Amino acid sequence: MQVDIGNVLSATPGVSRDGLERLDDDVAVAHERIETGRADAEHGYASLNLPETVDTDAIRQAVSRFDDPEAIVTVGIGGSALGSATIDAVVGGDAETYYLDNVDPEATTSLLESLPLSETVVNVVSRSGTTAETLANFLVVREAMADAGVDWADRTLVTTGESGNLRELADQHDLPALDVPDGVPGRFSALSTVGLAVPALQGADLDAIVAGARAEADRLSGSLFESPAYAYGATSYALTQRGASVNAFVPYTESLEYFAEWFAQLWAESLGKDGLGQTPARALGATDQHSQLQLYRAGPHDKQVTLLRPRERDDHGIPETDLEGLSYLGGSSLGDLLDAEFEATEASLAAAGVPNVRIEVDRVDAQGIGELLYAMEAACVLYGELANVSTFTQPAVEWGKKAARGLLGGGDFAEADAVADKTRLVID
Amino acid sequence: MQVDIGNVLSATPGVSRDGLERLDDDVAVAHERIETGRADAEHGYASLNLPETVDTDAIRQAVSRFDDPEAIVTVGIGGSALGSATIDAVVGGDAETYYLDNVDPEATTSLLESLPLSETVVNVVSRSGTTAETLANFLVVREAMADAGVDWADRTLVTTGESGNLRELADQHDLPALDVPDGVPGRFSALSTVGLAVPALQGADLDAIVAGARAEADRLSGSLFESPAYAYGATSYALTQRGASVNAFVPYTESLEYFAEWFAQLWAESLGKDGLGQTPARALGATDQHSQLQLYRAGPHDKQVTLLRPRERDDHGIPETDLEGLSYLGGSSLGDLLDAEFEATEASLAAAGVPNVRIEVDRVDAQGIGELLYAMEAACVLYGELANVSTFTQPAVEWGKKAARGLLGGGDFAEADAVADKTRLVID
Repeated sequence: MQVDIGNVLSATPGVSRDGLERLDDDVAVAHERIETGRADAEHGYASLNLPETVDTDAIRQAVSRFDDPEAIVTVGIGGSALGSATIDAVVGGDAETYYLDNVDPEATTSLLESLPLSETVVNVVSRSGTTAETLANFLVVREAMADAGVDWADRTLVTTGESGNLRELADQHDLPALDVPDGVPGRFSALSTVGLAVPALQGADLDAIVAGARAEADRLSGSLFESPAYAYGATSYALTQRGASVNAFVPYTESLEYFAEWFAQLWAESLGKDGLGQTPARALGATDQHSQLQLYRAGPHDKQVTLLRPRERDDHGIPETDLEGLSYLGGSSLGDLLDAEFEATEASLAAAGVPNVRIEVDRVDAQGIGELLYAMEAACVLYGELANVSTFTQPAVEWGKKAARGLLGGGDFAEADAVADKTRLVID
Repeated sequence: MQVDIGNVLSATPGVSRDGLERLDDDVAVAHERIETGRADAEHGYASLNLPETVDTDAIRQAVSRFDDPEAIVTVGIGGSALGSATIDAVVGGDAETYYLDNVDPEATTSLLESLPLSETVVNVVSRSGTTAETLANFLVVREAMADAGVDWADRTLVTTGESGNLRELADQHDLPALDVPDGVPGRFSALSTVGLAVPALQGADLDAIVAGARAEADRLSGSLFESPAYAYGATSYALTQRGASVNAFVPYTESLEYFAEWFAQLWAESLGKDGLGQTPARALGATDQHSQLQLYRAGPHDKQVTLLRPRERDDHGIPETDLEGLSYLGGSSLGDLLDAEFEATEASLAAAGVPNVRIEVDRVDAQGIGELLYAMEAACVLYGELANVSTFTQPAVEWGKKAARGLLGGGDFAEADAVADKTRLVID
């Protein structure tokens, strides 16, 4: 992976070369802290050790019972779904993959009606075994299988912590079970059992994914000028400090749409605390040039734009044409057009003084997605160190969980009472 | 459609009841301007007349040649795709629908390989008939059909302006052709031929969609306290002025995911100019509570959160369970859980002082999506009047279009030269 930060040097907001060099002293200190955390396998920092600690053989072994499923349904939410979906969108396989990562009754019913349940593997993921959405969906899927005469215990894989409901179920019914590793928060778990079970079911090359991650781990160093991951994290931090409160994250390839979503969770949940943080805004190139670019160029100067592309991809030629004004397209290719639009958009942002960062990988494949996932995680951890926030926690979501539980009759919570006290000003 | 702005009154940033009443004088003036624009069918304002001017019979007639297609591929980008995708995601039909709204060669190849081309309708949409991405994709699809021995002219529907490449093709080959209406920018065209052709192909109830839109049109008035659409537009404007530079738009139903994307284009491209605008951030409830909520609650107070749900939906029960700590879910339903999470999240944002607006529709159906589309368009036009921006133009995207064209050898453009001059600072 390569990062080009040339277009932040004289943008508004921007970071000068001198500013980056001063910041590099802090990067050195942060890197020391991160290395200590890794050496001690501290909570969160342990995530950056996954390229060394993940056991791909154990993952392959756990899924070996399932022979060539037609469909794989992952039941999990947030970090229990996004990393897996991100990797699967890149490496793929023969099975259709689905994610029950919401509790929308219409979407769930529709999915269950269309699935070949007897040829489907259910992959349930929850560290605690008590995540309300995940367990509700699991109960629903299990019932659908029973109604269809399918033995759910034959078709279920569990990824969970050392104890809890799912672990007990796995023990009772002899389900294959993978361990969520210690010290790895959900949004940092893509390179663990959590993110790799579906690719393993698909027969993907897990070791290539891990090798990509390891390559980026090996490049972490005490200087942002030597590590692409830290260059991205430090530059994003400096731009946020200077007013880039939004990070518009724009991959120029559809296979990385989920990666942008995964990044949005990583960035928002890790760095959004103490009144700080940078808001991720997901977009897709070249499509969103026809949707968001007007705002990025001519709206408030409160954004960093991250443009991401592979250096190589399989291409598709555009036929010759005599259509008026379009002969220049003929004999070219969709890839040429997409690359021209990438470079044109980057230059158009620079011309408007909007700071932008280019990220490139060789290819969007198993190795490439490993590089990207690891590098963005390391970038995020570095940003968190520089901002002095508690990167690996998410305390602000507890309030709503208690309120929801209280509303459903799951206990007495003061938070649930607040719902009834809502101030209303209804225009009907 | 109903809007509840109670949770903006004492938030940070917030708008007091007095502030809203002062703003209402400006709303009255803006409403007058909008009504004049509608009466004269001025560019842009004419969009708000679509519930009266759209000819649903003509749309049904144009698609009547195509009998029950297995698949529909819309070739269009930005406003030529998003409105159609938004409506189709709600009203649906028997055909699988796809959107070639990008120029990703890998995604395009993969789609063409999987399509039943002889049973597919191709719906090409471009007002000018020269949109590079759309015409390139159309050439590619046409070639794929020829290679498969399918007569493309038998399977193609065109929606375009009075002249240009697509109009000429339609005339030459006797293709069914729909007119893009005058005075309607792409992002305001969902309720026209552009957005309704696919629902017509699907046999959906176009008149119910239009009736929903008309119901909201009938409620526009000179006061934000009397019109839900204006309440949303005026409140969003006032919050932006006070520091809510981001609008996190969060439907609590998967069938409105495209609607959030459509809204993002409407809001960004219409209002993002002259250094002004509010950045849309798309999210999905309840999923993104596990991704974005930490940031919304505990990050910078630079956001308005828009929470959107239907009052009724088809539900799905959750089986009884003896799993530890989860008995409260049993006998409940996924819809109950989703509603509890909606209300809990809303209250949790209020408790953190984050301004949030609740939008509700009776159901997400043909009528409901008509209401939502029209109301957000009217809200956007009102916001544009209050901010004094040129709502219906998108001048900032021209620079990049010229640069891309120059890079592809489509003429000499100074913008293309700027690409070569890029400042580089590469960390590799």
